[in-house]
Amino acid sequence: MKFCSSCGGSITLRIPEGDNRERHVCGSCDVIHYQNPKMVVGCLPVWEDKVLLCRRAIEPRHGFWTLPAGFLELEETTLEGALRETWEEACAEVDNPQPYCLYDLPHISQIYLFYKGDLRGPRFAAGVESLDAQLFAEADIPWDELAFPIVRRTLERYFEDRQTGLFPFRAAGGRRAG
Amino acid sequence: MKFCSSCGGSITLRIPEGDNRERHVCGSCDVIHYQNPKMVVGCLPVWEDKVLLCRRAIEPRHGFWTLPAGFLELEETTLEGALRETWEEACAEVDNPQPYCLYDLPHISQIYLFYKGDLRGPRFAAGVESLDAQLFAEADIPWDELAFPIVRRTLERYFEDRQTGLFPFRAAGGRRAG
Repeated sequence: MKFCSSCGGSITLRIPEGDNRERHVCGSCDVIHYQNPKMVVGCLPVWEDKVLLCRRAIEPRHGFWTLPAGFLELEETTLEGALRETWEEACAEVDNPQPYCLYDLPHISQIYLFYKGDLRGPRFAAGVESLDAQLFAEADIPWDELAFPIVRRTLERYFEDRQTGLFPFRAAGGRRAG
Repeated sequence: MKFCSSCGGSITLRIPEGDNRERHVCGSCDVIHYQNPKMVVGCLPVWEDKVLLCRRAIEPRHGFWTLPAGFLELEETTLEGALRETWEEACAEVDNPQPYCLYDLPHISQIYLFYKGDLRGPRFAAGVESLDAQLFAEADIPWDELAFPIVRRTLERYFEDRQTGLFPFRAAGGRRAG
C-alpha cells in the first residue's frame, strides 16, 4: 500500500496514537487503512454415501479437487456465501446446512468456515471456475489430488464422524505455540 | 475508494471480466481492490457463577457493557485474537476456550465469533478501551445497559445452556429471507 485510497496522499507505516501496532496511515489526511484477515466460506455437500467435489479450473492448484468455497462478500451472511459458492462452483444446492469446520490459516490471514449439507438431489455440474464436479464415495476419494490440506482434513473428519452419526462443530487451529 | 493504493491512479467501479459483481478497479494499473467482511473475535469469560463484562470507554456505545471483543488482526488465529482482546480490554486470561457463538451481521459486513472460557482467577481490570470491568451473576446483569444485541443474545444463551451444562456451538444469522 503506497497511496491513500481516500485522498491519493502518500502512505507511511506507523503506530497511531492509542494503538499498539503499525498501520498504513495517510500522511496527508491521516486516515488509517486497517488490513484484516478474510473469511472463506464453503460447503461439504453430501448425497447418500457420497460427497461432492469440484476440480479446480483456476490457480492455485489448477486441476486438483476441492470443496466448493470462496471469499465471503460484503453484506453477505456466512451461510449465504457458502450456498452461493456451492452454486457458482458446482451448480448444486444443499438443504439442512450446518456449520461444521472452522480453520485458522494465520500464515495467509484467512479463516475458513465450512457448512455440511444435504445435496438437494444428484444435480450438479462444473461451474465456470471448475473443470469437473463429481460425487465420490469414501473409497474413491482422490486423496493424492486434493487441492488443500483443509479439504483433506474436512473429508477425513466427515468420514470419521459418519461412523457415529454425530457431526459436532469443530474449530482447528487455535493458539499457536510460539 | 477514489485512488489506487498501488499506483495512485483513479478508481472506477466496474465488473471485471469473469466476475459477476462491481469491484473497485484501477483505471491505470488494472489492480482490483476487493473489499470483504471483517471478523470480530471475543470471549465470554466465566468465573464460578459469574461472567465478566467490560464497560466501554470508546464509541460506539460509550458507557455500555459488553464482552471483550475486537477486530481480528492479520496473521492471527481467531483464538489468539479473542484472547488478545480479553487481555487488552479486561486484563484477564481464560483457560479452556471453546468456540461458542457465531453471528452474521451482514448489514455492517461483520462476522462475530465468541469463545467461552474459564477465567484463570478472579483477576481482571479495565483495559485502556474500558471504563470498568466487573463480574456479574445472572441476577445482576445490566440488561438495559448492554452495548449490542449480540452481547445480550450470548448472555441469554449462556444462562440457558448453563441449566443443562451443555454449551453447543451455535451459529445465528444464516440465510436471510429476501
